[in-house]
Amino acid sequence: MASPTWNKVAIVGVGLIGGSIGMAVLKRRLAKEVVGIGRRPSSLGAAKRVNAVTTTTTNLAKGVRDAELVVVCTPVEDIVEHVRAVGRIFNPSHKVLITDVGSTKAEIAHQLEKSQQTSGWPPDLQFIGSHPIAGNEKRGPQHGSADLLVGRTVVITPSQQSPRAEVARLKKFWTSLGAEVVVMTPEEHDTAMAAVSHLPHLLASAIAGASPDRYVSLSGSGWQDTTRIAAGDPALWRQILLANRKNVLDALQRFENQLAAFRKALDSGDAKSLERLLLEAKRVRDANGGK
Amino acid sequence: MASPTWNKVAIVGVGLIGGSIGMAVLKRRLAKEVVGIGRRPSSLGAAKRVNAVTTTTTNLAKGVRDAELVVVCTPVEDIVEHVRAVGRIFNPSHKVLITDVGSTKAEIAHQLEKSQQTSGWPPDLQFIGSHPIAGNEKRGPQHGSADLLVGRTVVITPSQQSPRAEVARLKKFWTSLGAEVVVMTPEEHDTAMAAVSHLPHLLASAIAGASPDRYVSLSGSGWQDTTRIAAGDPALWRQILLANRKNVLDALQRFENQLAAFRKALDSGDAKSLERLLLEAKRVRDANGGK
Repeated sequence: MASPTWNKVAIVGVGLIGGSIGMAVLKRRLAKEVVGIGRRPSSLGAAKRVNAVTTTTTNLAKGVRDAELVVVCTPVEDIVEHVRAVGRIFNPSHKVLITDVGSTKAEIAHQLEKSQQTSGWPPDLQFIGSHPIAGNEKRGPQHGSADLLVGRTVVITPSQQSPRAEVARLKKFWTSLGAEVVVMTPEEHDTAMAAVSHLPHLLASAIAGASPDRYVSLSGSGWQDTTRIAAGDPALWRQILLANRKNVLDALQRFENQLAAFRKALDSGDAKSLERLLLEAKRVRDANGGK
Repeated sequence: MASPTWNKVAIVGVGLIGGSIGMAVLKRRLAKEVVGIGRRPSSLGAAKRVNAVTTTTTNLAKGVRDAELVVVCTPVEDIVEHVRAVGRIFNPSHKVLITDVGSTKAEIAHQLEKSQQTSGWPPDLQFIGSHPIAGNEKRGPQHGSADLLVGRTVVITPSQQSPRAEVARLKKFWTSLGAEVVVMTPEEHDTAMAAVSHLPHLLASAIAGASPDRYVSLSGSGWQDTTRIAAGDPALWRQILLANRKNVLDALQRFENQLAAFRKALDSGDAKSLERLLLEAKRVRDANGGK
């Protein structure tokens, strides 16, 4: 059997995504050691029980020591702080790659580029952002899966300063977990995600929130599907929406224009326009559905 | 073995719903004969092949002869015409119940009440509307299932003139297929459906239609779930939305108010309000999800 690619991988935050990454790494024997770093011993214990990590610690400095890859899987608004903390305590004798799994990328990239340009930043510690497009409305490593990323897309967002070899290493990491990797700028990523992830979440929540309780007992699979993601963690999504505020507002404007066309057709009883709008929506959905 | 409840059930329109009803009746041996009536021999052939019907015909008069129950499963805008056609040709020697499966009820009930009050209407032919809350974006009896209605809700919408015994017969028909029956007025039904079915469909279509093609390839399960029903038949949904136009516009107004609250919170960076809106949506979804 080939020897593992990594001696030690550190995962900061072992929730659904962090736990799934750990399981995937260990199941595929890509690392000898996967250390889970977190604040709550209960989450760390759960991660250990489902074989997402080999060791656990609540001590960041201890956890990342000697790691070749650090994956920060904490909520969006904590990522910059956690990456900076790794930078402060790290003095590696080898090249170290640090990435994250945040759903927004531009603000994090912007802040960390500044950190990486300061004199105190370890030159052999490279941050390149990642966003695995996976996960669901559940939480915790016990809902994770070693195959969560199989067939899924992971967007990575190197900067112009990112060394090619490190970009290649990160790409290989995700593909070795079964994912397909797409390279984009952080800004392109955030614009796309506003349209196909963040705005749909906001709209699913608005639909659920505007549904009178007394009628929802009569809902069928349509309401169920359309509102499913509204069950997501409100604190997490509040962070994502605010971190990508400008792009989400732009996407919302596009949606409002489309909705106005529907309203106009319905209001005036314009069957032809209404069917054309429904048909165009079906075209987009049919071309991209079934994933 | 007990003898079947019905000698002959006629199904007008053997698509996904009509076909599933036929399969359910035959699997449970509730009728000796299920005749499928349709315009296209190809659909009728498909219904026969999947055991949704015992015989088929394109001749309405021939098909409904001697039937004790007629279920009209044609698109919403054809239902009144088909029920009236049955009324014109029928001269039953026994009590006959006719129902439909349309997604809107008030306009159909209104028009058919007028027909039932005319002197030409056979006194032993009773129409009582039904709406099985089931089905999906697929079409055709080959996508049907004998268990499509198991655990699902069927709303029935008798009028004040509907004989109690006929209401009880219709109720028993649906419960014998595994469904739970809810009795509402046609107007209550349409108000509720506007909120939890017709508006969500319109919104799913508006989301899909407003999603730029170049970004949708990056969509995850959120976009996929939220837009799933936009794959539905545009002609069918155009009919439903227009048939329930006023109620859908009212529900749309409620949604737009909710969306305006989201926009305001996002626009002003009001984290507290945004999280409160997301939390309220999660409450509604969690209380009604998992169906």
